[in-house]
Amino acid sequence: MAPESQTDRLKQQIEFIIAIDQLKDVLRRTYVMSGDRLENSAEHSWQLAVMGLTLAEHANEPVDPMRVVKMVLVHDIVEIDAGDTYCYDANAELDKAEREQRAADRIFGILPADQAREFRALWEEFEARQTPDARFGAALDRLMPILHNYHTGGRSWREHGIHRSQVIARNRHSAEGSEALWDMARALIEDATAKCYLIAD
Amino acid sequence: MAPESQTDRLKQQIEFIIAIDQLKDVLRRTYVMSGDRLENSAEHSWQLAVMGLTLAEHANEPVDPMRVVKMVLVHDIVEIDAGDTYCYDANAELDKAEREQRAADRIFGILPADQAREFRALWEEFEARQTPDARFGAALDRLMPILHNYHTGGRSWREHGIHRSQVIARNRHSAEGSEALWDMARALIEDATAKCYLIAD
Repeated sequence: MAPESQTDRLKQQIEFIIAIDQLKDVLRRTYVMSGDRLENSAEHSWQLAVMGLTLAEHANEPVDPMRVVKMVLVHDIVEIDAGDTYCYDANAELDKAEREQRAADRIFGILPADQAREFRALWEEFEARQTPDARFGAALDRLMPILHNYHTGGRSWREHGIHRSQVIARNRHSAEGSEALWDMARALIEDATAKCYLIAD
Repeated sequence: MAPESQTDRLKQQIEFIIAIDQLKDVLRRTYVMSGDRLENSAEHSWQLAVMGLTLAEHANEPVDPMRVVKMVLVHDIVEIDAGDTYCYDANAELDKAEREQRAADRIFGILPADQAREFRALWEEFEARQTPDARFGAALDRLMPILHNYHTGGRSWREHGIHRSQVIARNRHSAEGSEALWDMARALIEDATAKCYLIAD
């Protein structure tokens, strides 16, 4: 590759790194465990990546931990344009796919074409949940807010009046990625219901 | 491995994931690029990991991008106990190593022994900068605050009265990991000095 071309690639890559800084400004509905503020999607992505390194042995099927890590590192980047869609907001879910596709076009499109394709493919694989790596990554993504809610006295669940049955319906596909993690999540959900962090039904 | 043992491992691993949530409360001296608040070490680690995926082609020597990613994901975890040491604070540097060793003992020690060893070894490799992966990871870690300062009008540099020569002295080892990234950083430092984000000397 000619030196000029390497310089162009670096410029595009740095522009991308600067653009994704905005993921630090996208707030989720969960609180950090110290309880002082809402969590943002950048720090959430970091925690999922460390989970990918740590918990891969609990996947139902063999997974490549580093592919899981790559997926979770990029899985929320589209939220910079599309926003974080609260998983218990049925209306916002309606146009989520279209908003996120446009966001993926713009943001991954900042990168050199080969990397844009790679990152977009990882994001699409994560969303589709059709591979062992993606199913496991999705299980991590669903476990984390349950842990956050459980360890903050159900703060976000209580603020939004969430029912036990909603949490189970929304997250039960975690079992496709990891029975072990879903078993643990189920136990936390039952205990959270007993403690009135969730509305029993 | 017996089922009981897998359950014990999962408990230790989840305890670790909960413990590291506190990295979201460790504030750095740099501002997020939107300029509204100081950046925390968890979201910083996420951005470095995405840089590891994106910029590995610019390393001086061939690197394993996924080992770089693993290193940067865990490189700041010790700050949960030891705090973020400002790189231009000479006094705080004096007992930094001892504080960080104690922190590594405690925090990585929450994990099952095999993973505790692996994460600690990654952190020590990163700190020592004796391998191509570690040198490149360190170059990313040094480039990022320069980008943050440059794109926030030198906000943190100006608040602390930082001189151009300090930034060069502190970060020049980046060239050992990536001449290309250090060349870019040097150009930003010169332009930042011309714009009075840094004190000329």
